[in-house]
Amino acid sequence: MTASVNPGGDVAVLVAAAGSGLRLGPGPPKALRLLRGEPLLVHAVRRLLGCPEVGCVVVAAPPGHEERVRELVGQGVAVVSGGAHRRASVVAALAAVPERFGIVLVHDAARALTPPAQVAVVAAAVRAGHDAVIPVLPVVDTITRVGPAGEVLGTLDRSGLRAVQTPQGFRRAVLTAAHTAAPGPAATDDAGLVERLGVRVHTVPGSELALKITTPLDLAAAELLLGA
Amino acid sequence: MTASVNPGGDVAVLVAAAGSGLRLGPGPPKALRLLRGEPLLVHAVRRLLGCPEVGCVVVAAPPGHEERVRELVGQGVAVVSGGAHRRASVVAALAAVPERFGIVLVHDAARALTPPAQVAVVAAAVRAGHDAVIPVLPVVDTITRVGPAGEVLGTLDRSGLRAVQTPQGFRRAVLTAAHTAAPGPAATDDAGLVERLGVRVHTVPGSELALKITTPLDLAAAELLLGA
Repeated sequence: MTASVNPGGDVAVLVAAAGSGLRLGPGPPKALRLLRGEPLLVHAVRRLLGCPEVGCVVVAAPPGHEERVRELVGQGVAVVSGGAHRRASVVAALAAVPERFGIVLVHDAARALTPPAQVAVVAAAVRAGHDAVIPVLPVVDTITRVGPAGEVLGTLDRSGLRAVQTPQGFRRAVLTAAHTAAPGPAATDDAGLVERLGVRVHTVPGSELALKITTPLDLAAAELLLGA
Repeated sequence: MTASVNPGGDVAVLVAAAGSGLRLGPGPPKALRLLRGEPLLVHAVRRLLGCPEVGCVVVAAPPGHEERVRELVGQGVAVVSGGAHRRASVVAALAAVPERFGIVLVHDAARALTPPAQVAVVAAAVRAGHDAVIPVLPVVDTITRVGPAGEVLGTLDRSGLRAVQTPQGFRRAVLTAAHTAAPGPAATDDAGLVERLGVRVHTVPGSELALKITTPLDLAAAELLLGA
């Protein structure tokens, strides 16, 4: 990749890229699966670098694939070894962000087609004073809650639900505090951790392009979106 | 359509097909949008008729399009005028189901690729004694609750959430009771109405093929699924 970060940017982005991608079937780690001939990670990082506010990108690579990831992303992007869990990857990447960055975004490589504009909107909301920012979309399906044995506890009011995407943006001190707090039940995203500190989370509009590529069907849909 | 219901089947299926499909962009009502050259409704009904348990299908057609729908589905399938809201469509279709059917499924034409096996599994669970049955899938995205002003109330534990599909299956008396009960807040599905009666809802596994076709991206994904 010849593009690099903008030295004048004030935003650091951590890219969680250590996931296995089991639901995509046998193959390399998810971030290295190909979409139109390029790894998902390359698509994701290129779009981050297309955002002039971004002055630092740190990728948490799948353990054992660090060198391959370094070749792919080029010299302007930092690479650390990811952990066994997403949270460990984020902590490792956060430790590699230079002191001067006060705004830190956390992104998933699996949301490879997230447009630079979405990155910019999240960063702008943090810069405007929000401690924690998440991009969200309305929920299409009816969602029900189930108990431990799979018993239905009740339908949720869909109008009060949002699907949460990435990048999620944070004032750096808030993200650090969330990840150094005593571990509780596993959170599926960083905003979920931050909430436990009592920090108010702000929403901005997400994008269909920021879909999480999890299954072969998602990968096919992403191909279509690239062609559109 | 030359296929028809199986006269020996003991299951009636109501097909809600009166939606506008605004999110697909300008065009005919959603059930009449084309997928591989055939209306979504035709795909949906053909798969219902592929299920030998199905002895009755009633389509709630978009108002003003009843004749076109009758031509499409053929003589073995009943057609009624749909209502302005999903609930009104279901009530109209339910009234057209002959007395002898004690098991009634409610399906969305927008889930056009739902496999006959999913229909059979739902019907079998009702036949086995469950009053209400829904097909469900795990939820992929993190889901958060928001308040009236869009403020984040908190992330939900994703492991306790399921995305609800159709067809949903009911003992007929239960579905009738749910739809004749005093109207409360709008429910997005029939199981949501049935829950308010205190009826226990049973889950069975859903299918990625039963995706709800809502956006142009969904339509493209459905094209791919058809080709796969």
